[in-house]
Amino acid sequence: MHSGTQITQGLRLAMGDSPAWTVEAVRQARYHVVSSDHLFTRDNTTLLTGCPDAPLRSGERRLLVVDENVDTLYGAQIREFFDFHDIRATVLTLRADETVKQWDAVCEVVDAMNDFGIDRRREPVMAIGGGVLTDIVGFAASIYRRGTPYIRIPTTLIGLVDAGVGVKTGVNYSTGKNRLGTYAPATATFLDRSFLRSLDLRHISNGLAEILKMALIRSEKLFDLLESHGPAVRADRFQGTNGDLARAADAIIAESIHLMLEELQPNLWESSLERCVDYGHTFSPTVEMHALPELLHGEAVVIDMALTTALSTLRGDVSEAQADRIFSVIRALGLPLWNAVLDDTSLLEHALQDTVRHRDGQQRLPLPLGIGRHRFVNDVTPAELREAARLLHGRAADLSPAASDEELVSV
Amino acid sequence: MHSGTQITQGLRLAMGDSPAWTVEAVRQARYHVVSSDHLFTRDNTTLLTGCPDAPLRSGERRLLVVDENVDTLYGAQIREFFDFHDIRATVLTLRADETVKQWDAVCEVVDAMNDFGIDRRREPVMAIGGGVLTDIVGFAASIYRRGTPYIRIPTTLIGLVDAGVGVKTGVNYSTGKNRLGTYAPATATFLDRSFLRSLDLRHISNGLAEILKMALIRSEKLFDLLESHGPAVRADRFQGTNGDLARAADAIIAESIHLMLEELQPNLWESSLERCVDYGHTFSPTVEMHALPELLHGEAVVIDMALTTALSTLRGDVSEAQADRIFSVIRALGLPLWNAVLDDTSLLEHALQDTVRHRDGQQRLPLPLGIGRHRFVNDVTPAELREAARLLHGRAADLSPAASDEELVSV
Repeated sequence: MHSGTQITQGLRLAMGDSPAWTVEAVRQARYHVVSSDHLFTRDNTTLLTGCPDAPLRSGERRLLVVDENVDTLYGAQIREFFDFHDIRATVLTLRADETVKQWDAVCEVVDAMNDFGIDRRREPVMAIGGGVLTDIVGFAASIYRRGTPYIRIPTTLIGLVDAGVGVKTGVNYSTGKNRLGTYAPATATFLDRSFLRSLDLRHISNGLAEILKMALIRSEKLFDLLESHGPAVRADRFQGTNGDLARAADAIIAESIHLMLEELQPNLWESSLERCVDYGHTFSPTVEMHALPELLHGEAVVIDMALTTALSTLRGDVSEAQADRIFSVIRALGLPLWNAVLDDTSLLEHALQDTVRHRDGQQRLPLPLGIGRHRFVNDVTPAELREAARLLHGRAADLSPAASDEELVSV
Repeated sequence: MHSGTQITQGLRLAMGDSPAWTVEAVRQARYHVVSSDHLFTRDNTTLLTGCPDAPLRSGERRLLVVDENVDTLYGAQIREFFDFHDIRATVLTLRADETVKQWDAVCEVVDAMNDFGIDRRREPVMAIGGGVLTDIVGFAASIYRRGTPYIRIPTTLIGLVDAGVGVKTGVNYSTGKNRLGTYAPATATFLDRSFLRSLDLRHISNGLAEILKMALIRSEKLFDLLESHGPAVRADRFQGTNGDLARAADAIIAESIHLMLEELQPNLWESSLERCVDYGHTFSPTVEMHALPELLHGEAVVIDMALTTALSTLRGDVSEAQADRIFSVIRALGLPLWNAVLDDTSLLEHALQDTVRHRDGQQRLPLPLGIGRHRFVNDVTPAELREAARLLHGRAADLSPAASDEELVSV
């Protein structure tokens, strides 16, 4: 509920020429985000008792939906954990990337829930994988018998700091990014950074893009952390190999998640469409879907942020020195500033139009004010977009790719 | 929200070994049910101004999803109404019966919303048709961009008194009745009984089944109304051709809807699984899907009610005289007491098992106590079910079909 709104409940009947009824009710939502590394070691009981609303007891059973790559790397350990605690685990292995984030994947999960004969109140589905997988499973669970609980265990950085802590589920429909979905919080999300040790650096960068988003709009302190420690923490894959790296990794993740939840909680169902967490998400849905499968979600988001940083520079809201710091941090985190789909500037206009449709007829575009603050604007013009794209293209060409970024796909 | 539950909102952070967050928020739901006959005559402005939360203004546009039979009979009048009020109406005509209440139908609606370029806050989809159609459109709207408003205009009796006044949407999945769906109230439902004048008597009876349900569990007064006036009101298709028929039709519909909303409002999302409005819906989902396309929804529901009336008679909760009155009213309303799928009593056990799974491990079976009251039980046995089926089969054979019921499909 948006702040300031009154809560009302009851049934009213008005008798005019004909009867008319008004029904009012409120629904309580509650969800938990619990950090604990090495979830699947025998002596870690967080999965069993760590969330008061989702206890897991010996003798019970669970349906797990596990990303196929995660299953290859961790499947044996996961099964062994459940066996050890006398929980019968049925595993559906799912391929989950943006190209297959479609209805067919939802059906695979629904079929598994049918076969399992899931109890829609007591047996939450457990989703173990990246943001694409948890979005698919969350959507399937939220519509199965009109709502079956689910639990998320993100295995990627973007899952840990972004997809895994919000309430959105969904799949793409044709070329429409997340065109179908629900607002349905997982009862619990368990954050285990130890999964990141096997993640390739490109996917570490993918998650850093969403952390950088929170920094740019909400926290200069978080930006400073990324600037000083981001590259090292990235290379260490957030594993905290020494004390300094551990402190920096802890601070970056906790700060990013806390800022995100502060923004989400008062506006969980987006009754207000001015959402600063939409920063980087104005042009990126169209860019991402057009570049598919070239760009990861975070890469499309960071290109959007680079473009709007350029736009804010033109407006005098971000100084050139600040923009240089931002562009340098983006490169240092192994992220792109540009993609060839931006060469067609009509795409940006199209993307803006689609976003306006999504935001009730206005742009409601969050733009950075310096570093760590933002404002909303409604007056961006096509000409201004072209100018910003030209400026960004020049700066992207100036900045050579960071060293040792074997995974980079763009300028 | 279930009564007695405390409303809590906010973000809590607990710092143990690792951070853990709890997010709490409440969501306000409000919807309107507005009666007005002859909605699509020029001088009736109910659709434009009758619901404060869904104003419709000249110069706007709307996407209509209209049942193909309704379009044949009323399409010209509907288009003329929108033209007259300078509202651009785009019409998707949809076949909607239980056999096509599947995902493909949802896709047809989603495609139309995409093509229309619908504004997800300002342009509610208008669903004009029976309960199957409004369930499909409601589901599509509720997942499109994670929630687009919709409006219902039921054109069948079951749509008017049941599907159209609750908050459930959904489609079947394979043989699972309403296996996929959401709780998503239409912003407004407009009830126009004039559509019933062209409805065949079998579909009038189909709606009377849900009205009888409310009578049996909640209101002896409503049962008395059905007993004395039901057959005449049915033959008149609720058109109020004379004063007596008009008063009876008004009273039957208003009483039924009011009782239904009284039951729904405190438990809109079914946090309590003891729902007396589930009466008739324990065995009927399985019976309906197995007999498909032979039985309409209300016909399956009334068979379930007849069976559980027999069961309550065996338990002494309903007297034989009361059961005779109930069976006679069922027949007089043109409804079946039996279907051949019940010959296989293992089907009933299977249906009970599936319902138990749906009701969190217990039967929570609403059973009639006399006429107009109910209680919940959890101890129905397979042997008792077989005995009740045998009793009902005998009574069904005794009672000859009501005269002039050309549409009846069962005993």
